[in-house]
Amino acid sequence: VSARRPLHPVELIERTRDGDEPSGEEIAALVAHYVAGEVAPEQMSAWCMAVVFRGLSDPGTEALCQAMVESGRQIDLSALGRRVVDKHSTGGVGDKTTIALAPLVAACGVPVAKMSGRGLGHTGGTLDKLESIPGFRVALGVEEMIEQVERVGCAVIAQTADLVPADRMLYALRDVTGTVPAPALIAASVMSKKIAAGADAILLDVKVGDGAFARDLGTARELARLMRAIGEQSGRPTVTELTRMDEPLGRAVGNALEVAEAVEMLQGGGPEDLAELVLASAGRLLALSDLGVDEAEGRRRAVDAVESGQAVSALERWIDAQGGDPGLGDDPWSVLERAPVRVEVRASHAGVVQRVGALAVGRAAAALGAGRRRPGEDVDHAVGVVVEVGRGDRVARGDVLAEVHARDAAAAEHAVERLQGAIVIGDEPVAALPVLIETSG
Amino acid sequence: VSARRPLHPVELIERTRDGDEPSGEEIAALVAHYVAGEVAPEQMSAWCMAVVFRGLSDPGTEALCQAMVESGRQIDLSALGRRVVDKHSTGGVGDKTTIALAPLVAACGVPVAKMSGRGLGHTGGTLDKLESIPGFRVALGVEEMIEQVERVGCAVIAQTADLVPADRMLYALRDVTGTVPAPALIAASVMSKKIAAGADAILLDVKVGDGAFARDLGTARELARLMRAIGEQSGRPTVTELTRMDEPLGRAVGNALEVAEAVEMLQGGGPEDLAELVLASAGRLLALSDLGVDEAEGRRRAVDAVESGQAVSALERWIDAQGGDPGLGDDPWSVLERAPVRVEVRASHAGVVQRVGALAVGRAAAALGAGRRRPGEDVDHAVGVVVEVGRGDRVARGDVLAEVHARDAAAAEHAVERLQGAIVIGDEPVAALPVLIETSG
Repeated sequence: VSARRPLHPVELIERTRDGDEPSGEEIAALVAHYVAGEVAPEQMSAWCMAVVFRGLSDPGTEALCQAMVESGRQIDLSALGRRVVDKHSTGGVGDKTTIALAPLVAACGVPVAKMSGRGLGHTGGTLDKLESIPGFRVALGVEEMIEQVERVGCAVIAQTADLVPADRMLYALRDVTGTVPAPALIAASVMSKKIAAGADAILLDVKVGDGAFARDLGTARELARLMRAIGEQSGRPTVTELTRMDEPLGRAVGNALEVAEAVEMLQGGGPEDLAELVLASAGRLLALSDLGVDEAEGRRRAVDAVESGQAVSALERWIDAQGGDPGLGDDPWSVLERAPVRVEVRASHAGVVQRVGALAVGRAAAALGAGRRRPGEDVDHAVGVVVEVGRGDRVARGDVLAEVHARDAAAAEHAVERLQGAIVIGDEPVAALPVLIETSG
Repeated sequence: VSARRPLHPVELIERTRDGDEPSGEEIAALVAHYVAGEVAPEQMSAWCMAVVFRGLSDPGTEALCQAMVESGRQIDLSALGRRVVDKHSTGGVGDKTTIALAPLVAACGVPVAKMSGRGLGHTGGTLDKLESIPGFRVALGVEEMIEQVERVGCAVIAQTADLVPADRMLYALRDVTGTVPAPALIAASVMSKKIAAGADAILLDVKVGDGAFARDLGTARELARLMRAIGEQSGRPTVTELTRMDEPLGRAVGNALEVAEAVEMLQGGGPEDLAELVLASAGRLLALSDLGVDEAEGRRRAVDAVESGQAVSALERWIDAQGGDPGLGDDPWSVLERAPVRVEVRASHAGVVQRVGALAVGRAAAALGAGRRRPGEDVDHAVGVVVEVGRGDRVARGDVLAEVHARDAAAAEHAVERLQGAIVIGDEPVAALPVLIETSG
């Protein structure tokens, strides 16, 4: 009720602008009135820009998040009778972690009921990746989701329309008004979705690097700290991991390509950095769960699930339950569509790979059709890039650096050019960097 | 044409936000697309907020102003065959300068063709004041205005709808989004209207104090400097005067009350600060005109025009031409409406007047009905406040400090209370301060 009392939006904007932060109640009222159409978009965007410059205090950020949660439905997962853990990544290039992590954690006996989003810009969304599996349905209702989790241990569905409408409105507004990069706004957005979706404990993967929102460690740490503060204040244990996003995660960038790589990981293969991140995250999620294990024991159980084949079995049950062909677990490319044109990118000279630019690779894949430029656009599930080298690798002239998967030759050619610039070869001997930077919480 | 090429508003907002100011061409394109409805209000308000924090360079401000001018009709006053001078005030409490200055300058042989605005908030607009003269018409067309100036030397009309539509849109947007206080935006707004209205040379009265936008000298100087830079860049000599707005200008605050005080000044009477500002401004305007006189000679001619009665005659011809009763020049209160309730505010103790708060007096008058809270509201022409003392005056207990002119007793009572707080009496001997702080240009 207090969130709907009369308010003076201009005064709240002016005070935020001048560094005299409105109270949590006032911020909550601003959000409630915005959702109700009583605060104009031009007022909300001006307020967001003032927040970009001034930031928000922790209590202000918490009030913003809570008001966003209360703008819509809050899902009750208590029917599962378990502590429900959830995981979120702030988004990066080649991030297919969820597709491997969800069945892996389920294989270890922890239920996964996850809502996910679509991608915009150069980072693809988990839903787009899953939809590259023919027949896979993401538009499940909450009851259907809960029933599926009880039956097969795992479900990943599209966020339902009644969940956090304030976030949907604010996200669309910020996207077109240059008001995305405010840690307080990002933290409130991420946490509002996790809290409304019913998570009891949350693992957050905060990406750092040129392919992520947080380009430097300081920004990433501030964002992680804010999200932990919100989690703590709302009584939901929250752990953050900061991970490197200077290079793509794994080798594959593109929807079907990433699904295949995630399956490969569950089969015991795949790139080292992806396996490391998935296994470490699984350990942390099991430690947050009601299994009563610590992180090290959690990781051991995850490794066992991969080695025993239980992880792949969990994947097959999950894919089958949501309408896809479970043959995916045995041979991904018997199910997924391959792009018709494949062109190799080769080294023009010998040397050491100094850098594989995440942003540049992501943009090359998006330009091939793997990403979308505006909401509602279709993505091409088959196209993308597979990078064959990483920082520190020695290459000879003519070695394959990457493979482009394209719809036609012209698109492939453009991508090859972009990738020649994205993969930097020099004389300096450099070392590969671990994917995990630090963990807190 | 260049202003209508494709543009990426989000990119321009982001660059402004990050201190990488877009080019003048890009700023012009942003304005042109906003007026055409192709840049959304929520984008424009976010951009304005970024400008509040980052400011704009002089070339950026000039480009913004020029684009605003080009958004609508540009008036050609060359039919008058004279150098046309114009004057603008950034707005303050009790500012009736134009009503005395326009006929005074006309009496000295310099044509005045002026467009003016309505007030919003605690500062009334010249049009509202003039409309307290029964029958006075402000909605003249440009041709009618020019014809009147040729015939009687003077016209003050409402800004026509086709003039600077970008300013009308931006002003309304900034008013509700907390993005008013940016010197670059204010300077571009003021100068765009003067330039589009056909002025060849411009005198700007920048008010400083709690009753004005610029509360401190630094802000006022920056605003004055920016406006002179725009004037110079557009080839229109521009002079700025910084004047004090800690106390109301003159004694009368309220529409008819202010008209009467302006007439009194032309008759050779009225408060000293008002006479000083009007005569000094007249001298500067004559020096900017094609008469070929300097400021001192201009002021002498203005003094002569008052003393000889030519100033009042010019006023009478002007008022008559626009439909009002020329008897105003002889006896204002035979023409203007007096408020039915008049209550005196008396000193509760003896002492020295430390301060007559301009903002507080302005708000008291607005609350009586002299101002409007939102565009389109009617104002009550008769009501207002006449302050009888000024800073430095000694008063005994029971002396009259001010007179409230109200529509009813309840409103009068509220105003008396407000004024008791606005007029501060203390023991400190203080001196009156000159109205003019400094002149430049």
